[in-house]
Amino acid sequence: MSPAPEALRSLETPRVVADRGRLAANIARMADLARAAGVGLRPHVKTHKCLEIARLQLAAGAVGLTAAKPDEALVFIAHGCPSLTLAYPVLDGRKLDRLLPAAREAGCDLRLMADSDRGAEALEAAAARHGVELPVFLKIDVGLRRCGLAPGAPGLVPLAGRIAGAQGLRLAGLLSHAGQAYAARDAAQVRDIAREENRLMNAAAARLRGAGIEVPEISVGSTPTVLAGDVWDGVTEIRPGNYVFLDRTPLRLGLAGVGDMALWVLATVVSANADWLIIDAGSKVLSSDGGAHGSGLDGFGLALSLDAGDDLAQALPVLKLSEEHGFVQRESSRLGVGDRLRILPNHTCPVVNLADSLTVIHPDGATEEWPVAARGRVR
Amino acid sequence: MSPAPEALRSLETPRVVADRGRLAANIARMADLARAAGVGLRPHVKTHKCLEIARLQLAAGAVGLTAAKPDEALVFIAHGCPSLTLAYPVLDGRKLDRLLPAAREAGCDLRLMADSDRGAEALEAAAARHGVELPVFLKIDVGLRRCGLAPGAPGLVPLAGRIAGAQGLRLAGLLSHAGQAYAARDAAQVRDIAREENRLMNAAAARLRGAGIEVPEISVGSTPTVLAGDVWDGVTEIRPGNYVFLDRTPLRLGLAGVGDMALWVLATVVSANADWLIIDAGSKVLSSDGGAHGSGLDGFGLALSLDAGDDLAQALPVLKLSEEHGFVQRESSRLGVGDRLRILPNHTCPVVNLADSLTVIHPDGATEEWPVAARGRVR
Repeated sequence: MSPAPEALRSLETPRVVADRGRLAANIARMADLARAAGVGLRPHVKTHKCLEIARLQLAAGAVGLTAAKPDEALVFIAHGCPSLTLAYPVLDGRKLDRLLPAAREAGCDLRLMADSDRGAEALEAAAARHGVELPVFLKIDVGLRRCGLAPGAPGLVPLAGRIAGAQGLRLAGLLSHAGQAYAARDAAQVRDIAREENRLMNAAAARLRGAGIEVPEISVGSTPTVLAGDVWDGVTEIRPGNYVFLDRTPLRLGLAGVGDMALWVLATVVSANADWLIIDAGSKVLSSDGGAHGSGLDGFGLALSLDAGDDLAQALPVLKLSEEHGFVQRESSRLGVGDRLRILPNHTCPVVNLADSLTVIHPDGATEEWPVAARGRVR
Repeated sequence: MSPAPEALRSLETPRVVADRGRLAANIARMADLARAAGVGLRPHVKTHKCLEIARLQLAAGAVGLTAAKPDEALVFIAHGCPSLTLAYPVLDGRKLDRLLPAAREAGCDLRLMADSDRGAEALEAAAARHGVELPVFLKIDVGLRRCGLAPGAPGLVPLAGRIAGAQGLRLAGLLSHAGQAYAARDAAQVRDIAREENRLMNAAAARLRGAGIEVPEISVGSTPTVLAGDVWDGVTEIRPGNYVFLDRTPLRLGLAGVGDMALWVLATVVSANADWLIIDAGSKVLSSDGGAHGSGLDGFGLALSLDAGDDLAQALPVLKLSEEHGFVQRESSRLGVGDRLRILPNHTCPVVNLADSLTVIHPDGATEEWPVAARGRVR
């Protein structure tokens, strides 16, 4: 984005802009990483919620997609996604009653997840209602303390056995998300978390195999652990999401450079006083997110003038937000009312989730709008 | 909401639910307050973005509506809003080229705002292009340090004079927003801020009048200052927004009770471990907002079981969020997977802004979906 494309100087603001060249490079880099590691790549769509980007990921060799919520998954299933893992515990049969027929009709290989008897029960009942066999991952908690059972949990073998033995279900394998990596100090600590995740997943798999339960797959993922990780023992697939756009967290961790950042918010200074440049992007555009899993970045983004290119040494911090205004610390900047800023967000996933569409800027300067097709699909 | 309506026990989650009875009471209470104070009520639609609620506000006697962004305003103008103040500095003529013809066609009395020469210039040019006369408020900064000129600013009289004298513009009056009140310690401090706002607005008006410039209106507003304020000298209208739903900030300030809280997030516990109940509402439902203007509440909401009614002594805090999961501190709670929670958000405005519709629960238990019609209209 240097020199700034004309679109950045002319398009109405506020606006979420994606750099098509960087997006393509990020997609290719992760596809290469997966190939080199000998694992399948199953990107999480929660970051972009965008059919165009899912198609690029699949065209680059992704084995399928990952989604968090059933209604989000439905959008991609309806548009030809060949295989989708819903990496979320679904308890409500009504969600499955939408999902299962849609997957069957579209010929999508749908894979689900459970981490409780209640969850397994819901999947078993749905499989019976719809006369299908469902592959089900068991979620392993590798330290985030969110969903999943610890590898040593007493309930692990019984629940895996229940899934493996249930009419209409089969155990697809084990699934993890080491989201605690977003809060790590640096890349070395992320790498340690990724190694520990690998150790824990293999320990859990060994327990199940020792109990005579087959574990066909080990699915892991988060952008930081996948970028920093160096051990892929037993892993069959990875599920990073954020890597398509990246943001201040992988930048802080040293896992990506500013030239990889593919998603920015374009804003205009609409007012100014001695302390602040007030921009037309507030929490309803930038979100109030402090970084994935609250990873604790200062402020709400880094603002660059269009002439500053990617030089973060010139960045002004967005230190406060109200709903439709951002407060950019003025420092010694000579910017004023009417000037434009390009803002690197803390966390691109919730930023995309606030937008109805992304303005994609091609290397030749052409732009197109890509709808955030699965936005708002929270159930 | 006590006992919990059947809808809360049966509707799919996550979901933003509004209590129709409380909403009506909040609308009536603010209408009464405005009447008692002898000021017009011009509610800000940014909180609800919902045509149904705007109609209730107008039916209760509101003189018109307030909006932040042109595209948000267009939704209400197209649906019969008789008078609308766009309380935001608009610099880009393209926005005005959508807004002005729409207002003329709909017969809407559109009022705009400026706080810079650049802003006044944009309005003047648009008025000329469209052959209309535009009422323009001058924004006064009463302490938020966001938009507006301080009452004593050297530029105040020249800018007001410019607006008053410009071809196609007339000075509608002065407009303020004491958003710093959201961060106040208590109701007494909010009242002091409201008194100071009144003093500053009258000081600014006196300066202009002393310079021979007419100041027909003084428009102030924010839910806390309007609820806590007791001085209305010279004020012609108030522009509160949040009062329709309220949230943890007015509750913290002692300006409303839990029984006034009209907007909740309904969620289900989808996983549980020794420390946390994991719910299906994360930052993409609850937002990561710490309270209006970052007013610094702990955590991201207060969760009540459906049997707890409004007893906040039983509330469990939502202490962490990831995108599609909330971490509710388990404490000694006996709740588990499959149980439902009703969550009082930190800040209702960004919560509504994430939803495509609100599920409105009537006192008789009936429900309806109200679209968040102006969601995503950020330009």
